[in-house]
Amino acid sequence: MTDGAAGHRPDVPDGPTSWERVSSEHGAPLILFRPRYDRVRHPRTGAILTRLVLETPDWVNVVARTPAGRIVVVRQYRFGSGEVTIEIPGGVVDPGEAPLETAERELREETGYTSARWTDLGSVQPNPAFHDNRCHHFLAEGAIQTHAQALDAGEDIVVGTLTTDEVRDLITRGEITHSLVITALSRVLDLRLTAHRD
Amino acid sequence: MTDGAAGHRPDVPDGPTSWERVSSEHGAPLILFRPRYDRVRHPRTGAILTRLVLETPDWVNVVARTPAGRIVVVRQYRFGSGEVTIEIPGGVVDPGEAPLETAERELREETGYTSARWTDLGSVQPNPAFHDNRCHHFLAEGAIQTHAQALDAGEDIVVGTLTTDEVRDLITRGEITHSLVITALSRVLDLRLTAHRD
Repeated sequence: MTDGAAGHRPDVPDGPTSWERVSSEHGAPLILFRPRYDRVRHPRTGAILTRLVLETPDWVNVVARTPAGRIVVVRQYRFGSGEVTIEIPGGVVDPGEAPLETAERELREETGYTSARWTDLGSVQPNPAFHDNRCHHFLAEGAIQTHAQALDAGEDIVVGTLTTDEVRDLITRGEITHSLVITALSRVLDLRLTAHRD
Repeated sequence: MTDGAAGHRPDVPDGPTSWERVSSEHGAPLILFRPRYDRVRHPRTGAILTRLVLETPDWVNVVARTPAGRIVVVRQYRFGSGEVTIEIPGGVVDPGEAPLETAERELREETGYTSARWTDLGSVQPNPAFHDNRCHHFLAEGAIQTHAQALDAGEDIVVGTLTTDEVRDLITRGEITHSLVITALSRVLDLRLTAHRD
């Protein structure tokens, strides 16, 4: 018996089950996250272990393509890596907001682009080992710059566009590096390294 | 002027620069992370803002292929999502360890598979907004099960193999969801959704 999204596969034996959560305790909030310490019971040994969960709101990001097929990108300084990165637009789902609404809002606020043609590209788990959230990917086609940027006081973002070949090249050369940007783009671009194409 | 990996592109204007770090203070350790609060200066407004960084060791994961070309996967309960997932093997780079050594060790410990043919598939940043680490992706070809599993006391992992078509199908149907598993696999598999293939 298993639970969660991963159903039975003949060549991946069932076996691991959910671990019983014996108790939970929250730590002090961390700006972006709410830490939770779960005491869980190992299903085979019965041992009680402590595991950290960072309760995290859902995120979204957007592959926005111009009428010419170019991809809208943002350049900004990232505090974790201490580097200026090239990414696609995205952000945090506000309470009560649907992921598509967040996607439309973040695209408009960060870049000034809007689109009438939106497609849900599905979602991923940023890291199910310790995050409880998802990142929802969207495609916005025929995107054009209709608004001025509306940046938060804590943002400093420059907008540009790249061809799909340029985006692929930046990913394979390791210059576009954000994992969630890559998972979104992998749904519309073939990102295989040249040496590993069949 | 920019710094970091993202060099000048004609269609992505330069502009954002590094933010000066005015001071830094560590919070209490969080099992997996060391929180750091940076006071940073907005480069345009001069405002001082607090930003959270989770100092995090590097991670690795491994696309291990059997002589028949099947992909080695692991099934385990994940504490963040509260679900049993299907992923590729991986883990945390220990102090003093090279990422390739970690990859060889984690593949052997989690699955019992070993390989003589390793290829570096490059690395990604799990989330440069708040992590300072990288996840290094490796390909192990001709992998065969030569050892018994050697699980940590806190692990409960079942091993299996899937064809590349099965893996692609599980990703597009949202049953393989871990972003870093997908970024690794995107380097060897074409993961475009059917509707968006050119």
